[in-house]
Amino acid sequence: MFKETFQRYLTMIENTLTQLPWEKDILNESMYYSLIGGGKRIRPVLALASAEAVGGNPETILRAAVALELIHTYSLIHDDLPAMDNDDYRRGRLSNHKVFGEAQAILAGDALLTYAFELLADSDLGQPERQLRVIREVAVAAGKEGMVGGQVADLAGEGKSLTLNEIEEIHKAKTGALLTVSARLGGILAGGTEDQVKALTDYAKALGLAFQIKDDILDIVGDSETLGKPAGSDLRQGKSTYVSLLGLEGAAQQLHAQILKAQSSLEVFDERAVFLNQLALYIEERKH
Amino acid sequence: MFKETFQRYLTMIENTLTQLPWEKDILNESMYYSLIGGGKRIRPVLALASAEAVGGNPETILRAAVALELIHTYSLIHDDLPAMDNDDYRRGRLSNHKVFGEAQAILAGDALLTYAFELLADSDLGQPERQLRVIREVAVAAGKEGMVGGQVADLAGEGKSLTLNEIEEIHKAKTGALLTVSARLGGILAGGTEDQVKALTDYAKALGLAFQIKDDILDIVGDSETLGKPAGSDLRQGKSTYVSLLGLEGAAQQLHAQILKAQSSLEVFDERAVFLNQLALYIEERKH
Repeated sequence: MFKETFQRYLTMIENTLTQLPWEKDILNESMYYSLIGGGKRIRPVLALASAEAVGGNPETILRAAVALELIHTYSLIHDDLPAMDNDDYRRGRLSNHKVFGEAQAILAGDALLTYAFELLADSDLGQPERQLRVIREVAVAAGKEGMVGGQVADLAGEGKSLTLNEIEEIHKAKTGALLTVSARLGGILAGGTEDQVKALTDYAKALGLAFQIKDDILDIVGDSETLGKPAGSDLRQGKSTYVSLLGLEGAAQQLHAQILKAQSSLEVFDERAVFLNQLALYIEERKH
Repeated sequence: MFKETFQRYLTMIENTLTQLPWEKDILNESMYYSLIGGGKRIRPVLALASAEAVGGNPETILRAAVALELIHTYSLIHDDLPAMDNDDYRRGRLSNHKVFGEAQAILAGDALLTYAFELLADSDLGQPERQLRVIREVAVAAGKEGMVGGQVADLAGEGKSLTLNEIEEIHKAKTGALLTVSARLGGILAGGTEDQVKALTDYAKALGLAFQIKDDILDIVGDSETLGKPAGSDLRQGKSTYVSLLGLEGAAQQLHAQILKAQSSLEVFDERAVFLNQLALYIEERKH
């Protein structure tokens, strides 16, 4: 059941992304290149599954859900730039600026971020108050207090040894905030109660931390081909990670604790939250 | 009267910008540096004056109006980057990346763009349907069909000789779209009729073109100190401009024609549009 539901969400997401009105020019091409270049689609999946958990129809929030993927993709394009992390590869393919050049990559990121807000404000959704709330929340999660702030902190922490607390603060901002708002978006737009939205928030916060711990573990135990990026790069860069601070065993324990926390947050829901429950297990066991 | 009204708008805009909740960290500092570094504030001024022209109170739309300045500022920061126009100076001061470094400048731009949408969705405005419409329009004007698309076209046109039509298409996208949406934002949020919003659109389109023609003229006849940037740079770069294609006289005629067009678009309004009328003259006569 889990796999089927996941596949159903992925199909909806890919169809929505590919069917957006992409023009035939270099800007659209560069945006599309990074957007359709694979990826786990975890943010829109979280949004769709959260909408379903509160009894809504995920079909109705699809454009808002894929907006989250546009924001995530823009952040990857900018993070990969030479002035930032200088990564030549992303998801096993050349990064955007290696294909289109730096100027185009910066602009592709800018355009993806801007387009995301157009989709969030989509008139077909017909829920102006909920949409405005979501736009505010997404902007906060993606902006200076959230994702962009986290990237600044991450760059500032490079080459320094950080404490577990410092690492957690960076992750909460850099990746946690957008993951959390993804679940909230689904719950809010589908008309969930405040209690349900709060439960989705707790769930997604734990899931986001679990996701990051698993990333750190995979950097050590994964193989480069499955990961689509070089394994062991954290280690080589002397980066402080959950594994470097807690050891593999300790990190795995932390991971499991977060998974349990995520699952227990779902107790307020009925069987419609089964997918979210199983998604947590999937995060714990994923190979890439 | 014109000067007093302009000053009243500028004071409102500067107060709003400086009183946003800026944190004391490097990201906020870098955003603030470029935002408060001067500039004509033409976009928020257009928004406030348009709100007043349709009989609204500009005070109520201030946060939405300054969001336009955030978007304009982000675009300047990214345009100045070494990978783009590689400008060391902006508005007579060092450009953002010369002060904060490239990575920080990219992120400051990203955060300004994101913050703009947070402000556009501000809950105090209390006009969810109008706000959503404005968010969609701003996203289109600032995105791949508008400002970002125009910058891509501008970069692609570098070193080529362009026709007047091609130049106009680039300007319409790169600067015209955001100027036009600035006037529309004021009209829509303040509850203007569709006829009024249409008149504001025609006005701003002509004004935007006039603004650009004047820029091209000032590049030839202005002095560097007043401009806050090196005069004659278009000429040295062999750029196609209104002046290079029409001559100084021809460009001045075009400029004047656009000013008349802007002014005649205002005929549907009463005396509350006097400021917009005089703003057109100010654009024609400005020295920087």
